[in-house]
Amino acid sequence: MKILVINCGSSSLKYQLIDMENEEVLAKGLCERIGIEGSNLSHKAAGKEELEVKKEMPNHTVAIKMVMDALVDPEYGVIKDTSEISAVGHRVLHAGTVYSDSIIVNEDVKNVIRDCFDLGPLHNPANLMGIEACEEAMPGTPNVAVFDTAFGMKMPEKASLYAIPYEYYEKYSIRRYGFHGTSHSYVSKEAIKYCELDPETAKVIVCHLGNGASVSASIGGKCVDTSMGLTPLEGLIMGTRSGDIDPAVVQFICNKEGKDVNEVLNILNKKSGILGMSGGVSSDFRDVQKAQGEGNHKADVAIQAFIYRVAKYIGAYVAAMNGVDAIVFTAGVGENDKPIRGAVCEYLGYLGIEIDPEINKARGKRVTISTPESKVKVCVIPTNEELSIARETLALVK
Amino acid sequence: MKILVINCGSSSLKYQLIDMENEEVLAKGLCERIGIEGSNLSHKAAGKEELEVKKEMPNHTVAIKMVMDALVDPEYGVIKDTSEISAVGHRVLHAGTVYSDSIIVNEDVKNVIRDCFDLGPLHNPANLMGIEACEEAMPGTPNVAVFDTAFGMKMPEKASLYAIPYEYYEKYSIRRYGFHGTSHSYVSKEAIKYCELDPETAKVIVCHLGNGASVSASIGGKCVDTSMGLTPLEGLIMGTRSGDIDPAVVQFICNKEGKDVNEVLNILNKKSGILGMSGGVSSDFRDVQKAQGEGNHKADVAIQAFIYRVAKYIGAYVAAMNGVDAIVFTAGVGENDKPIRGAVCEYLGYLGIEIDPEINKARGKRVTISTPESKVKVCVIPTNEELSIARETLALVK
Repeated sequence: MKILVINCGSSSLKYQLIDMENEEVLAKGLCERIGIEGSNLSHKAAGKEELEVKKEMPNHTVAIKMVMDALVDPEYGVIKDTSEISAVGHRVLHAGTVYSDSIIVNEDVKNVIRDCFDLGPLHNPANLMGIEACEEAMPGTPNVAVFDTAFGMKMPEKASLYAIPYEYYEKYSIRRYGFHGTSHSYVSKEAIKYCELDPETAKVIVCHLGNGASVSASIGGKCVDTSMGLTPLEGLIMGTRSGDIDPAVVQFICNKEGKDVNEVLNILNKKSGILGMSGGVSSDFRDVQKAQGEGNHKADVAIQAFIYRVAKYIGAYVAAMNGVDAIVFTAGVGENDKPIRGAVCEYLGYLGIEIDPEINKARGKRVTISTPESKVKVCVIPTNEELSIARETLALVK
Repeated sequence: MKILVINCGSSSLKYQLIDMENEEVLAKGLCERIGIEGSNLSHKAAGKEELEVKKEMPNHTVAIKMVMDALVDPEYGVIKDTSEISAVGHRVLHAGTVYSDSIIVNEDVKNVIRDCFDLGPLHNPANLMGIEACEEAMPGTPNVAVFDTAFGMKMPEKASLYAIPYEYYEKYSIRRYGFHGTSHSYVSKEAIKYCELDPETAKVIVCHLGNGASVSASIGGKCVDTSMGLTPLEGLIMGTRSGDIDPAVVQFICNKEGKDVNEVLNILNKKSGILGMSGGVSSDFRDVQKAQGEGNHKADVAIQAFIYRVAKYIGAYVAAMNGVDAIVFTAGVGENDKPIRGAVCEYLGYLGIEIDPEINKARGKRVTISTPESKVKVCVIPTNEELSIARETLALVK
């Protein structure tokens, strides 16, 4: 069975066609600048040359049709007919409080995605466009919505509710949702297999450290807590996002700078994090680390603060679960940055954690970086959101 | 040597006269409704009848003079002449980034307190009025400012700086300060003595749990981290304060309710916490616990969430220090509420913590509630901010 995985942004569309017999990627690609002058498709099938198509894509429907054309292309494609695609799995950001699992799309589901536009203003409209484009391009082929918030919906109320007037939860669904859910779900389940833990009781902490970054705690693959909240702003220090701050900081900046709350939140989302803390060096960890190495004090504090925040979240989640069996690093920084992994684990000696510095030199591959004597397993498991979406889709349509 | 300790609010003045030979409280009292019709002084000297004086106090200078009169009163007083007061120690909320220790007040110090009015808008003006009233009433007697932010000023930058544009720290001193500093400083030092820990290296976590609540981590009595930030809003769930939330919640409520940022921050400070979470039951833990016992689900979640947040902060701070020697509960809830202490410690079994449920029945007294086998000492140490202020004052004037 072949499943197409789609991740739509407002002007982009990423896809992978996965053969679920062996979970192999048959082809993948990216449409860019949809609805903007100069749109472009890049497509690559396994074992074939890369295809670049420069052609205007006024909307996602046109983009999907171009993806179909590339997939069935005699030279660059991998299937004879789009009927070979059994189902399409869509990454959808937000399902509000309605869905805590993936679901086959029907009109009700589309209405929920639409109702959640205010909770996911950048992503949900694009996600819905992608679904509707597939409905048009492949009538009859089932579409599955895999929600990024589904994993976090399993949190108990003590972790998901804010200590604000209860009516705001009832009226506006203001609660903690968590994001990167597909990644946390995939990596925590893979960790249970990889570390040979009890699938029902394993206590796993996943550190998804990329330009966006979050930590989750799960027991038996079920989310106990996760660091992003109502929006992806809460939690860790990120490339450009502040993560946790005193809410009064919002008020303070508004009043001092004569800005309104939307302007300040834009700053907290786009000009903060290690970019802001380093005094503007970069939102890319490698650049800030380079500046740190050259003696830039602000860059040094920014990297230290990032590491410290990750360590504190791990500590908090160990308490949340009264113990931990495995700690996993994933995503760009987590998979590749050995100094950051090493520095986080230096805080965790009290848990009996020992890292093998030689093995910790590994980049981008599945590996256990803790020593055999370590009381907690620490490993790197590359995330794979597309495969996770394909598996969720398969489970619903087979 | 006798030291007068003063804690001024905008319309109140609390005082204690302490004999530093034996650290005994000679007299204490409270002026209420200063500047408001119906002002009132209540005064009580050790071993004497209580004195109530109903008399208008248009300002703090008049209030201080009434306190002096009560202290030298032949029937209700404890000294013959105010010259017996060697120094006055004042609780002052905020010293911005200028002072990280207590200091004898001069014009420079008063200017700093004045410069920090915007950081402590409710307290600093009142604190300064108290100092100036004492200068007028007791010319020549030294006044010492004991800053509530001093303890937190020792935090390293990785803990004190927010991940926001660095210029906001430079221009507006936006950083984490921490509050309840006098309490955390006192209790952490007392814990080192009480638990017979190494005064240089002891890792201590203090949970100051009252209607306002905060946690601190310190090594050798020096603050490593603390949960309140730029303002006392950050951190734990409190009686009426939200503690940590996604900063985007501020934006969301502003936009949904058509409120400005100051209105929303007022809600987060005064209508949130267990009051808001419980759907309005009460800001008093006892009331919410009563509702919880009667099956009120929101009250149950509020209490659970409060406990959970405390446990997570403890877990985070154990990671921050890579271990912990003692965990201490203090302030109203911390000193008296055994179910909450017990429930917090249930999360901490992974640290080898064991609580003796019989000993944990103690209320309001210094006691070790962990078993002799517990790997971490857990105790209750009643806070005493007045004594802490008096000690700081003595150290500077003797």
